[in-house]
Amino acid sequence: MYGERIARARARMRELGVDVLLLSTGPDLPYLTGYEAMPLERLTMLVLPAGVDREAMLVVPRLEAPRVVERPDAFTVLPWDETDDPISVVADLVPPASTAAIGDHTWARFVLDLQDALPEVRFRRAVDVTGPLRIVKDAAEIEALRAAARVVDDVAAVMRERPFSGRTELDVHRELVERMLEGGHERANFAIVATGPNAASPHHDPTGRVIVPGDVVLCDFGGTMHGYCSDITRMFAVGSPAPEVREAYAVLREAQEAGVESATVGTRCEDVDAATRRVIVDAGYGEYFVHRTGHGIGTEAHEDPYVVAGNDTPLVAGHAFSVEPGIYVPGRFGLRLEDIVVATDAGPERLNHAARDLATVE
Amino acid sequence: MYGERIARARARMRELGVDVLLLSTGPDLPYLTGYEAMPLERLTMLVLPAGVDREAMLVVPRLEAPRVVERPDAFTVLPWDETDDPISVVADLVPPASTAAIGDHTWARFVLDLQDALPEVRFRRAVDVTGPLRIVKDAAEIEALRAAARVVDDVAAVMRERPFSGRTELDVHRELVERMLEGGHERANFAIVATGPNAASPHHDPTGRVIVPGDVVLCDFGGTMHGYCSDITRMFAVGSPAPEVREAYAVLREAQEAGVESATVGTRCEDVDAATRRVIVDAGYGEYFVHRTGHGIGTEAHEDPYVVAGNDTPLVAGHAFSVEPGIYVPGRFGLRLEDIVVATDAGPERLNHAARDLATVE
Repeated sequence: MYGERIARARARMRELGVDVLLLSTGPDLPYLTGYEAMPLERLTMLVLPAGVDREAMLVVPRLEAPRVVERPDAFTVLPWDETDDPISVVADLVPPASTAAIGDHTWARFVLDLQDALPEVRFRRAVDVTGPLRIVKDAAEIEALRAAARVVDDVAAVMRERPFSGRTELDVHRELVERMLEGGHERANFAIVATGPNAASPHHDPTGRVIVPGDVVLCDFGGTMHGYCSDITRMFAVGSPAPEVREAYAVLREAQEAGVESATVGTRCEDVDAATRRVIVDAGYGEYFVHRTGHGIGTEAHEDPYVVAGNDTPLVAGHAFSVEPGIYVPGRFGLRLEDIVVATDAGPERLNHAARDLATVE
Repeated sequence: MYGERIARARARMRELGVDVLLLSTGPDLPYLTGYEAMPLERLTMLVLPAGVDREAMLVVPRLEAPRVVERPDAFTVLPWDETDDPISVVADLVPPASTAAIGDHTWARFVLDLQDALPEVRFRRAVDVTGPLRIVKDAAEIEALRAAARVVDDVAAVMRERPFSGRTELDVHRELVERMLEGGHERANFAIVATGPNAASPHHDPTGRVIVPGDVVLCDFGGTMHGYCSDITRMFAVGSPAPEVREAYAVLREAQEAGVESATVGTRCEDVDAATRRVIVDAGYGEYFVHRTGHGIGTEAHEDPYVVAGNDTPLVAGHAFSVEPGIYVPGRFGLRLEDIVVATDAGPERLNHAARDLATVE
C-alpha cells in the first residue's frame, strides 16, 4: 500500500515540477510510509526524490531509529547522532537549485534552517502533492473512518444514560477522553464540553463550571484509531430545555439533514454549506451560525475538502467530511450537530448513527 | 506579568534588529500573552511590533475569539471571518522590508504563505528573541515546575504499589495518563511504558505486549500543569531483576547522581553531560548510552538549555533541565533515571523526590 501511495506521490511531483518531497511531523508522512514523526526538536524528515530510480531516505534521530518499522518499499533509514546537524544531513540529500515541497505542519524552525542551508532551492507546500491523493478515500480508508465513527457513536449513546448535573465540564471532558481510549482509539484529539452559556463559544475549553439543571451541554469529541480520525457532536439537555433551545434545535436538525442530503457526487462544497445555511437563515438564526458547515477528515482531523463558501470543488465519491452546522446565541446557549459523511455514487452516506435528538439527561 | 514579558521581548527585538514578532502555535505565545493557539488550519497569529508605541494584534478566527481572554496590556483581538484570508490580514500588519521573527513551531504552510505575501521581508527564528527570556525561570515559574513535579512524583510513588505482571504496556500507559490528569495536570504530554527488551528503544511507543515476571519496566511520563511541564523516569522490576540489570542500574544511579551534583551555576551544559557519561563509560557501558543527558523544561517539554556535548552555555541560576542518563542494551533491556533539576546559587536543586531505587513490583 505504501509503495503504491509513494508511486502516486512521485507521479504528482513530476506533474508539478517538484523535485523532492520533505515530510516531517504531520499526517503526510504516516499516510505515505506508516511512520509518524515525533513532534519534538530532534528533526525527523523523509526525503523523497521524484525520480523512481532515486531512493527515499528517512532521516531520524538515532535514539528513535528503533521505533521505525522499516519498509524497504518505502524508504531507507538514515539515523543521525546527538551531535550531528540534521539540517545538513537533509540538505545533502536535496538536489541543488531544485523545487522542494515541504510538509504543511513542519515546524518553522526547520523550514527557515533548510532555506538558509539551501538558498537556491524553491520551497512550496507539500499539500499540492499529497492533498489530491489524501482527499479521495479508498474502501479500506472509509472502513477505518467507519470503525472510528462507531466508537464515538457508542460513547455518545452511553452518555445519554450518564448523569451530567453537578459535574464539571472538565469531569465530563475526562470521561469522554477515557471512553474514546477504552473504545480502541489510540489518541483522543479533543473533547469539547461546553455547558449553558459557555456553549456559545464554538471552540470552548472545558472549565470547572458545574452543570446545573436547565443547562444544555454540547459535546464535540474525536480521536484517532488505526491512523484515521473520528469527530462527532451531540447535545444533551439536563432536564427540560427552555422553549428557545427546543426551537433552535429543531431548526439545527433540519439544517444538518439538508446539508447531508445535498452532499451528492458533483455538488460543490460551497453548495453543501449553502444548504445548511439556508435553513438557519430562513428561520431567522443566520447571525448565530458563525462558522463554515464542515471540514474534510481522514488521517488529519481537519483536511480537504472544506465545506465553506467560496470552495467550488465538486464532491467526488470517496470525499469524507463533517456536516456540522451550529447556532450560538452569546450569553444564552450554543448548539451544534455533527456527523461524518462520505460522498458515494449511491448518494451521501453518514458514518455516524448515534441518535440525533436533543437527549434528555439527569 | 505578560506586559512585563512583552516589554522584555520588545527590548530584545530592538537589540537584534527584529521589527516584528509573529507567534502562532507553540509555547512562545502563551508565555508572552497567556493565550495558546489551537493547532489547526485556521491561523492564529500574534503580530507584535518592536516599537512600544505600536499596538500588538492577536489575529484569530472569529469562532475562537470568545475563548480569548483579552489582555489590554498585551494585545488587541483582531478576528477574521471564515471567508477572509488570514495571511493577508497578518501581512497588512507587517512593516514593509522589515525583519520578522516567526515562532519556531509555526506550521510551514503559514511560513511559506507569509513569505509569498511579503517577499521583501526577512524571516528568522523567534527563539532568538524569546529563548533568552524563557531559559531563565523566575520564582513563580520554578514553583509551577515544582508543583507539576510533585504530581508525577506522586504517580511514581503509587505505581510502586500497583501490579504490573499480566498487564499490557498500553494499559499501564493509560493508567499513567489518567493519574496525571487526576493529579491536576491539564494535559498528559507523553507516557512511555517500555517493558523488557522494548525498553532498549528510548522513545518506544506502548504496545499490547504483556508484562511478565522478570521484566524491567521503564516509565517516562510528563504533562502540563498551569502551563508548565513535568517529566520523570522511574524503573520497575517485576519480581527479582537479573544480575546484569541490577549491575547496570547501580551504574546508572551513580551516573545520574554525578550529573545532578555537577550542575552548579557556571558549569557548562556539556560538562554536566560529561559528568553522567564518564561514570557510564568508565563502567564499560558507554556504547549503550545513546542520547544526550538532558533538555531544558518550562512551558515546553523540551527547550533550552540542552545538556549535550558541544553546548558550552554555562548554567545560570534559574535554568531548569532534566538529568536523565540511560543504558540501552539491544534485545535485552533498557534503563533510564530522570529528575528535573534547577540550577540555583545554593547549588543544584532536584524538583523530583520520588524514590530512585529500582522498585520491586508484582
